[in-house]
Amino acid sequence: MRRVLLTGAGGFIGRHAPAALRARGFEVHAVASGKSPIPAAGGDVAAWHQADLLDPAAARTLVEQVRPTHLLHLAWYAEHGLFWTSTENVRWVEASLRLLRAFGDAGGERAVMAGTCAEYDWSVGGLYLEGASPLAPATLYGTCKHALHLVGEAWCKQGGIEFAWGRIFLLFGPGEHPERLVSAVARAVLAGQPARCSHGRQLRDFLYSPDVADAFAALLDSGVRGAVNVGSGERASIGELVGLVGAVAGDAGLVRLGELSARAEEPMELLADVGRLRDEVGWVPRLTLAEGVERTVQWWREQREPLIGEGTGIDGRAQPGD
Amino acid sequence: MRRVLLTGAGGFIGRHAPAALRARGFEVHAVASGKSPIPAAGGDVAAWHQADLLDPAAARTLVEQVRPTHLLHLAWYAEHGLFWTSTENVRWVEASLRLLRAFGDAGGERAVMAGTCAEYDWSVGGLYLEGASPLAPATLYGTCKHALHLVGEAWCKQGGIEFAWGRIFLLFGPGEHPERLVSAVARAVLAGQPARCSHGRQLRDFLYSPDVADAFAALLDSGVRGAVNVGSGERASIGELVGLVGAVAGDAGLVRLGELSARAEEPMELLADVGRLRDEVGWVPRLTLAEGVERTVQWWREQREPLIGEGTGIDGRAQPGD
Repeated sequence: MRRVLLTGAGGFIGRHAPAALRARGFEVHAVASGKSPIPAAGGDVAAWHQADLLDPAAARTLVEQVRPTHLLHLAWYAEHGLFWTSTENVRWVEASLRLLRAFGDAGGERAVMAGTCAEYDWSVGGLYLEGASPLAPATLYGTCKHALHLVGEAWCKQGGIEFAWGRIFLLFGPGEHPERLVSAVARAVLAGQPARCSHGRQLRDFLYSPDVADAFAALLDSGVRGAVNVGSGERASIGELVGLVGAVAGDAGLVRLGELSARAEEPMELLADVGRLRDEVGWVPRLTLAEGVERTVQWWREQREPLIGEGTGIDGRAQPGD
Repeated sequence: MRRVLLTGAGGFIGRHAPAALRARGFEVHAVASGKSPIPAAGGDVAAWHQADLLDPAAARTLVEQVRPTHLLHLAWYAEHGLFWTSTENVRWVEASLRLLRAFGDAGGERAVMAGTCAEYDWSVGGLYLEGASPLAPATLYGTCKHALHLVGEAWCKQGGIEFAWGRIFLLFGPGEHPERLVSAVARAVLAGQPARCSHGRQLRDFLYSPDVADAFAALLDSGVRGAVNVGSGERASIGELVGLVGAVAGDAGLVRLGELSARAEEPMELLADVGRLRDEVGWVPRLTLAEGVERTVQWWREQREPLIGEGTGIDGRAQPGD
């Protein structure tokens, strides 16, 4: 029996991971942070565990209780707008290393962790290739992920533990923060209001969040080691994406390109070479970009709360990785 | 009053730091690990503190008690022969980040930490220059130090805390582990026994350990940020060094070059560009290589224990950084 400890199981990506993992034969032990009550076991999850991984003792207690053969570590600090610079990034480096050590010490065999395209050097932009494109994170978030990758990989290699590192590119999907790009445009158009955006010519690799989870399940299920870009492999401009969102939401004319300035620090091209993911892991997206947008807009349509409320302004600028 | 928290104060370098720091006007709060009883305050140390920094709560308690303006973090796992690969390196990454966060949260202004020349890419060898020579540590030790540097520097930069990182090259001095190069050769020759060495043509930068401590005190006392190589700036071959040791110990003829094979992984040249240390920090070694060797051999001469005992064999190979 392959038993996986899944962290961040309540998160934007992690909530889709149990189904993807169970479909591949894993017994899923899901970890939820202490913030909200844990769900009952059942469905795709064999057991839920409540643990604050920032608590120094929590990881070891958890691992010794679960005795996982596999680790899928998606948990991290992800507060919208704050996560690029927060000290929580440093705390998550510490917590992630503690977790990995505990996992290895308890006989764990294979660990997969979530990295980010923000580890790459964005000053040039372009098509990023694992092992070849320079790593030069410009943010504390990217730096902390990069450092965790270095130490995690070196420690696991030495101890005979398999280690892989999925670098997530841009993503979107149901339940995303209302102020992020796809959410913001969907909400505005569904409410019949204009969605102001930047020029929209930036090229990006977008992946639907349930597919991100599925890609991680495939990576965990494989024997592939090292850094693996997690993206769709398709390039789309911001303009195309928000145009799609507007059309699906009922009125592409409400999407106003060029009405906001682009962020100075964002590269024109932020694209994933997905050769490793496609050829070595053997994974390709299940949904097209249009299908993912369709489902995401549908999700917003079904929300009961007002789509445009106090304090949830529309800022349809490209938010790379944010 | 500038108050420095000094970790690793009982270590091979750290034991020389209080005098160097006090000479520059620092009030020295020295931390000793829980392994041995702490000395009484006095001399160069305003107060000794006993703390196991691997204990998750220890650093914050300590920092809140001392309220240092400066941090000189020399503590790390340094067990001879084991430190290159030990999991303790990972634990020290965690502990060092906790310490740094606690220091910053308590209003600390400037932090200096000990790095290593093993962060550089040794596959090429040569003269290493901060910011220009590629970083590609081949060991867990070097990787962990590199990762700590990345995260520490990024976090401090963001929080307005000054951060510098001293990359230590090769060192020797009194009290070094008996099986390391200078110790081993000194002990053998003082005991009238042959000291077998490798070919000895490897070029290295050697610095006397009290001078390493003095360089760190100078770095802490400066406003220099970022990585700074800590070396003598002089190149010496292993053959020259052990020849000096043999001569000072009484019989250079007992030093037998070429009787051991060189380690496969060691580069022929491992040299420090000390431009930053010399020109920006304004520090140069107090002792020549010959003077440092003289004092080190003298230290061994004064030891009461037998110089060659059971289980302390002579292996006079170059041990870069080891």
